[in-house]
Amino acid sequence: MVHLGVDLGGTGIKVGLVDDEGKLLGSLSVPTNLPRPAQAICEDIVKTAAQLLEQKKIGWEQVEDLGAGAPGTVNPDEGIVIHAVNLGWWDFPLREELTRLLPREIPVYVHNDANVAAAGEYLVGSAKGAASAVVLTIGTGIGSGIILNHRIESGHYYGGGEFGHMVIVQGGRPCNCGRKGCFEAYASATGLIRLTQEEMERSPESLMHSIAAKQGKVSGRTAFDAMRAGDEVGKRVVDLFLDYLACGIANIINALQPEMICIGGGISKEGDTLLKPLTEKVNRELYGGSQRPTTRLQICTLGNDAGMIGAAMLGRMQQAKD
Amino acid sequence: MVHLGVDLGGTGIKVGLVDDEGKLLGSLSVPTNLPRPAQAICEDIVKTAAQLLEQKKIGWEQVEDLGAGAPGTVNPDEGIVIHAVNLGWWDFPLREELTRLLPREIPVYVHNDANVAAAGEYLVGSAKGAASAVVLTIGTGIGSGIILNHRIESGHYYGGGEFGHMVIVQGGRPCNCGRKGCFEAYASATGLIRLTQEEMERSPESLMHSIAAKQGKVSGRTAFDAMRAGDEVGKRVVDLFLDYLACGIANIINALQPEMICIGGGISKEGDTLLKPLTEKVNRELYGGSQRPTTRLQICTLGNDAGMIGAAMLGRMQQAKD
Repeated sequence: MVHLGVDLGGTGIKVGLVDDEGKLLGSLSVPTNLPRPAQAICEDIVKTAAQLLEQKKIGWEQVEDLGAGAPGTVNPDEGIVIHAVNLGWWDFPLREELTRLLPREIPVYVHNDANVAAAGEYLVGSAKGAASAVVLTIGTGIGSGIILNHRIESGHYYGGGEFGHMVIVQGGRPCNCGRKGCFEAYASATGLIRLTQEEMERSPESLMHSIAAKQGKVSGRTAFDAMRAGDEVGKRVVDLFLDYLACGIANIINALQPEMICIGGGISKEGDTLLKPLTEKVNRELYGGSQRPTTRLQICTLGNDAGMIGAAMLGRMQQAKD
Repeated sequence: MVHLGVDLGGTGIKVGLVDDEGKLLGSLSVPTNLPRPAQAICEDIVKTAAQLLEQKKIGWEQVEDLGAGAPGTVNPDEGIVIHAVNLGWWDFPLREELTRLLPREIPVYVHNDANVAAAGEYLVGSAKGAASAVVLTIGTGIGSGIILNHRIESGHYYGGGEFGHMVIVQGGRPCNCGRKGCFEAYASATGLIRLTQEEMERSPESLMHSIAAKQGKVSGRTAFDAMRAGDEVGKRVVDLFLDYLACGIANIINALQPEMICIGGGISKEGDTLLKPLTEKVNRELYGGSQRPTTRLQICTLGNDAGMIGAAMLGRMQQAKD
């Protein structure tokens, strides 16, 4: 049997076809084309899924289930998207609507997109085999998904799992969420770009100026590239950024101590350049020191496919829970 | 049947007798008398339990099980105290030792003391009936226990559940754990006393001076008492303290959004004087605002008995998990 996984975002609708082992057999994507009615988006999801199956010469009778990750607060028990700012949805019955549109009656699962991506990494990616994991996606913001004892922990009212909005600098930088000093305001790609720009203003001699000019803009890579080219200011920016990232990660370990913390998103492409100094900084911060075994840090392995794969595996996640 | 619950601390060994409903039928305590061998402490635990049973005219055959909470890192699965700084214990097989000393073979459960107190509040105290809860004990430090889906979450290597050591002010006040800016360094009774002292130095006119003189020292009550007497500086101290407390609590809600967060320890005796402004501050900090239902804050109800009661109920906690 195969499983359909939908990664629904503000920009695109990605639909993937996944086998029982979580291997992505193929995918198709169409633009979300906002603003438009939720109904039309659901129709496009099912249409795209049908096209994908046709491409792969797989009939609907071979599809075991469909899972979908949506941005925002999702009630997976009732299959409702409680609130998705980007999509303009309030209390939209996504599961019911997809079930109605599908040509065959199959189980439909829905969840928050960060949780779905975390489920993907947990079941078949970087945290495969772990008992518990927190997956952090470092992009424009910091998304996070918590999995403990094979359950996605999204909070009693489905509003938890938001480590990006944990304050680490009380009264610090304003965050989009309304708080000041959130982890995401410092340790996201946006936070890194802000740090880079601040240091560039202070240091006209830094290599970061020519690197940014060549790249056409200041990005999350600018400081890392400058560091690799031997620039001291670039090195300082990376170091400061890693301090913030390590601070938030040590907080998560002191609180939940999952077996693994997996780091994804654009910044994670730095690989060991990120992971090695980060692990050292985290270990120095840990309660009780690092003599005892503790949480292992890893780079995510599913990349942008985590959402589709995780969504397609939501049924298996549900079975493990029961 | 009845259950024995042991609250083992650096100062005292408290043994309680609890019925099936979690009602404390009686208790006895003896000094821990540190430093002395772990063996001698275990003998005192069993001796005190025997005395308590005799007092209550209850035979050992009516005792269903015994639970014990110990300060430090505890592996409840193997019944081992991995590390307890106060007691000077490293890898001490507490369950095995108690089992050996007991006159009758009954199940013995051990866990970390903050987790045990949380279990007490969760099963029969302020969080009774909730699906999930975080219990914060605001004392010299901040102890915390996390219960999700009827399981105590103490981390993959039993070193989690330490929200007190979540940094909320990066690079801030040094904490005993080695980090800087921990929640506990600001929002514990010790943190409140430090804030009080700082403001007293700046404000010789504050009522807090005469209140502290009358009480013989600056305590966690000084600022609250001054505020009640109309002192503006005292009000400011309480307000600052509540800002820090609200910051850490909002972090916990954004991360885990448990059904309830219960606040215990000395400060919790302030009751609504604490709870009302704290709840307002937390709601203002919450991701997505407070229009949606979210975590309820409560004051703990078991007081100093939470440790004994929770320890006595560990067996029931274990059964709920299986």
